[in-house]
Amino acid sequence: MRSALYTGNGAIVVTDGEAAPPGPGQVRLDVAYTGICGTDLHVLHGDMDHRVTVPQPIGHEMSGRVAEIGPGVEGWSAGQPVTVMPLRSCGSCPACAAGHGHVCHRLDFVGIDSPGSMQESWTVPADLLVALPAGLSLRHAALVEPTAVAVHDVRRAGLVAGERAVVVGGGPVGVLIALVARAVRADVLLVEPDAHRRGVAAGLGLRVLDPGDDIAAAVDAWTAGAGADVSFEVSGVAQGVATGVEVLATRGRLVLVAIHGTPRPLDLHRFFWRELSLIGARVYTRDDVETAVDLVDRGEVDAGPLISHVVALSDAPRAFATLAAGHGAMKVLVECGGEAR
Amino acid sequence: MRSALYTGNGAIVVTDGEAAPPGPGQVRLDVAYTGICGTDLHVLHGDMDHRVTVPQPIGHEMSGRVAEIGPGVEGWSAGQPVTVMPLRSCGSCPACAAGHGHVCHRLDFVGIDSPGSMQESWTVPADLLVALPAGLSLRHAALVEPTAVAVHDVRRAGLVAGERAVVVGGGPVGVLIALVARAVRADVLLVEPDAHRRGVAAGLGLRVLDPGDDIAAAVDAWTAGAGADVSFEVSGVAQGVATGVEVLATRGRLVLVAIHGTPRPLDLHRFFWRELSLIGARVYTRDDVETAVDLVDRGEVDAGPLISHVVALSDAPRAFATLAAGHGAMKVLVECGGEAR
Repeated sequence: MRSALYTGNGAIVVTDGEAAPPGPGQVRLDVAYTGICGTDLHVLHGDMDHRVTVPQPIGHEMSGRVAEIGPGVEGWSAGQPVTVMPLRSCGSCPACAAGHGHVCHRLDFVGIDSPGSMQESWTVPADLLVALPAGLSLRHAALVEPTAVAVHDVRRAGLVAGERAVVVGGGPVGVLIALVARAVRADVLLVEPDAHRRGVAAGLGLRVLDPGDDIAAAVDAWTAGAGADVSFEVSGVAQGVATGVEVLATRGRLVLVAIHGTPRPLDLHRFFWRELSLIGARVYTRDDVETAVDLVDRGEVDAGPLISHVVALSDAPRAFATLAAGHGAMKVLVECGGEAR
Repeated sequence: MRSALYTGNGAIVVTDGEAAPPGPGQVRLDVAYTGICGTDLHVLHGDMDHRVTVPQPIGHEMSGRVAEIGPGVEGWSAGQPVTVMPLRSCGSCPACAAGHGHVCHRLDFVGIDSPGSMQESWTVPADLLVALPAGLSLRHAALVEPTAVAVHDVRRAGLVAGERAVVVGGGPVGVLIALVARAVRADVLLVEPDAHRRGVAAGLGLRVLDPGDDIAAAVDAWTAGAGADVSFEVSGVAQGVATGVEVLATRGRLVLVAIHGTPRPLDLHRFFWRELSLIGARVYTRDDVETAVDLVDRGEVDAGPLISHVVALSDAPRAFATLAAGHGAMKVLVECGGEAR
């Protein structure tokens, strides 16, 4: 079976090898699709070499079917469609002890800290499986994981029906947050500099602006001078943080989704004056993943238009290059077996 | 009757004048004490000249008794001990409409935006009055307003019994936050560079550290490696913000109490990684003031040791100079009539 391995030094190499039979408590999956995430690009660029043991298959956004069941595993059957929640917690650190295992201090993020899904066959602990509805396209189901991120972010915001939310950054996660926010009946505005991405979002019925527009004035007009109840910072740039703060109403909540590698200047006086909150959000819980499955299945999160490219596993290096090049790329899927699974 | 007026250019001048009789909906108070707050020093130093109309009596931390009741005012009687909640909201801005009148967009902070209490007689709208228990020392009652700030901060934190909180900054508000946090049965650690202030806090039974100590190591030892549930940034300096972030456990909450005039670098990656929250907190609601009255009255907030100086109204300029000089000063009260009220 084929695997796309990160071998260090910016290289992805497709090799042929033996599928690992499932040990006790494990299942072997036939992978259908693996999506490429911004984090996978960081891995490729060497930013996570302290966490990745090369050569290693990467990837953690996937869909597939149960192929083989290891000793002691119950409740699953061969052929069943599944995705994987790629988080393994230690169960004993202070975060786990406090009930926040998804941000375990010793978290194994499967696909980074251990082998990922960009291969035809993938053997994982059975307790990471999440069942998929029979009728759900496996291509769409590959977007359940980033949708779970969006569900978690919207939950961390405490966003409710009738509230207004600004999403700063319209890559796949930003658009997914906007769609999940709309699904809870919030009113949403998305800010994104790339015209193609704005077009994808607009095609999904979202209100979109360019950061070059006067965002503050637009939000003022939209909210009758009150400001937005919630903003999501998904851009990863300093200006995105500033915009996320500037648009908020009194008692507004800024949810920090993007990774900022360096400290950012923050207008703390505004946080004081308007009693704002900044809320960090990372990955998701099992509840979030199950909600994501439901939203994608019901089409409230319409995954199709977000998939800009589907590339064969044998061409995996080109899939990474396509996403890295940017222009016109949203979600790039690597076909590891496809819908035929 | 005498008033201490801010006349601009860093000057406080004590003058003699006529007490204003109460108009409809107003009461005239005989002021007992007026405390000086850090904000009053900012006024004196000209930082708020855009808000203060000179010459103007300043001051907003007070206690006194009802002296004269204006037309249409019910429910109050002459001689009744009171304090004043010095906030007037417009009732119609977006913050007021959303139920957050205490941070009204057009807030009249009485004592800054309109005449304050550093005078023998003060005429105010009756709806700002808050009743004081008969047995409560009027000297202690002058600390109800900063205690209400502390109550509000602790409420914004959502601090509950058994949680651990670090207070960064041990001036009057920092110590009051620590005392209110202790009153809700949280475990508290206070960080303050001034040895005298540390001594006052230690005298109140609080655990205290110098910022020169290894705070992170101390918090690690105190919390078995988990970190604190809550931190309060009351120092107003960049290092205080960094400490407030560094000490927090996963899902910890940093309450921003101090005013930061310039943007501060914030470690947003830490907010993401540990799912931290930053919560702005400003002034208080009527509920907070009533809770503060109760805490001071029952002695759970022991106001006495926080009062470092009591200065006669005729000597008001010296009261400001004493607080500005710092050494040994905690809460400086101006006696506008004293306990004899």
